[in-house]
Amino acid sequence: MKITTVGLGLIGGSLCKHIKKHTDYTVGGIDINPETIKMALSQNAIDYEEKEPGSGDITIIGLFPDKCIEYCTENAAKFKKDSIVIDVCGVKKAVVDAVEPVLAAHDVTFVGVHPMAGREFSGFEYSLDNMFDNASFIITPTKNTPREVVNLLEDFAYAINFKKAVITTPEEHDRIIAYTSQLAHIVSSSYIKSPTEELQLGFSAGSFQDLTRVAKLNEDMWTTLFLMNKDSLCFEIDQIIERLGEYRRAIDSGDAPYLHDLLKAGRIRKEDSLKKNL
Amino acid sequence: MKITTVGLGLIGGSLCKHIKKHTDYTVGGIDINPETIKMALSQNAIDYEEKEPGSGDITIIGLFPDKCIEYCTENAAKFKKDSIVIDVCGVKKAVVDAVEPVLAAHDVTFVGVHPMAGREFSGFEYSLDNMFDNASFIITPTKNTPREVVNLLEDFAYAINFKKAVITTPEEHDRIIAYTSQLAHIVSSSYIKSPTEELQLGFSAGSFQDLTRVAKLNEDMWTTLFLMNKDSLCFEIDQIIERLGEYRRAIDSGDAPYLHDLLKAGRIRKEDSLKKNL
Repeated sequence: MKITTVGLGLIGGSLCKHIKKHTDYTVGGIDINPETIKMALSQNAIDYEEKEPGSGDITIIGLFPDKCIEYCTENAAKFKKDSIVIDVCGVKKAVVDAVEPVLAAHDVTFVGVHPMAGREFSGFEYSLDNMFDNASFIITPTKNTPREVVNLLEDFAYAINFKKAVITTPEEHDRIIAYTSQLAHIVSSSYIKSPTEELQLGFSAGSFQDLTRVAKLNEDMWTTLFLMNKDSLCFEIDQIIERLGEYRRAIDSGDAPYLHDLLKAGRIRKEDSLKKNL
Repeated sequence: MKITTVGLGLIGGSLCKHIKKHTDYTVGGIDINPETIKMALSQNAIDYEEKEPGSGDITIIGLFPDKCIEYCTENAAKFKKDSIVIDVCGVKKAVVDAVEPVLAAHDVTFVGVHPMAGREFSGFEYSLDNMFDNASFIITPTKNTPREVVNLLEDFAYAINFKKAVITTPEEHDRIIAYTSQLAHIVSSSYIKSPTEELQLGFSAGSFQDLTRVAKLNEDMWTTLFLMNKDSLCFEIDQIIERLGEYRRAIDSGDAPYLHDLLKAGRIRKEDSLKKNL
């Protein structure tokens, strides 16, 4: 099998390294930066440079969502007929809606994919050949996606050593990701901004570090991702604001039994969540 | 020096183990549960059982805040004259205000202390002889506390292997702890309660685990701690609700530059915070 990867950043680069480590597939790489291509070649992440897509049985678009849509649209006629194109973006519906019909018109199947891992750095220099060893490979087919394409992508995920492949819809993916990932970044970014943060006397709890870790984010990427998943994300922000208001009312009114109930319900919910994810 | 520890739970028990490991002080233990005393003796965390306070140069009250106030009030006349009594509670002003004058009337100096470490378990069986190796020992003197008592407690903290001793006031401690620890538990408990939590398809991001870790809490203890620090905690909840509202408005209105600014400010704030804590 021949793979073409467009955009050798953290995710694209790591996928190439996984492919080369675990399979005998041939990997061609496309990147606007010649230094990145040189690095990828020297680290054996790709077999050769390509200038344009067209030879891949699977083409991986390792670009930010807006650039991914732009690239696929501009190069729609160049992909190999009957081949598969996948992206790696953190939102799915906006990308799939924009790209799937454009490529379908050229007999190319586009499928939205989300490899669920990341680091607080970006660029090929931080890519790893084990980044996805414990990660899920989320595949989001639509009603137009042939079953054999989904099967092939599932096999691909396991072949390159993802822990599991998960199949869902673009809509469901976006609802879940709004909660498990996007909201975490919004809350973390909000948390760090209290005026009290400036008073810290050199004692901070582990819980503070946990709650604010992902405030260190790439604002270019997340601005795009958030705006492409507006409804689900606003729903989650509303939810947590409402919950916070309940705790506030219990505390402000000194209502110990109510506060105790709220905390207990959260503790049980967390314990159940841990059990589900075992 | 002779130490008496009242309440051999997770914190009291771990303090005893630190003392026995790092000093040649004598430790007497008081606990309502005879099994706990037996365990503490067999693990050499205490040298002998005591039934009443009275012999300690330093007495450590390892009880929840309400029980700590009750115990000190009821036993005020029994502590050794000119000795020091400290607590280990997560709130300071309510405890210090209640206990300091009562013990001062018996020539005993009460100082609020907060050993900054914990585990998601409670009881002597989870106590550790290294729990405080990387922790801060917060000392909260008032205007009545003699300077030599503060010095002695600082020396005590380093002698039993705390990483550092930090001196602040009860009020300042409570403002900071409302932000770095209490708010984290409220946010985490709120976060886990979204209806979307039930939809999770077996893919959850690391950020979700970080944001919800401390939702698994002891609701009995935290209800008391929160209600004893009402004003500071309500202030922090108001702050984060206000910040969340800003992100929500930026996302809902599709205002990319505003959202980008908000995220960038949070990222910079987090980076500065990390530098300060190096």
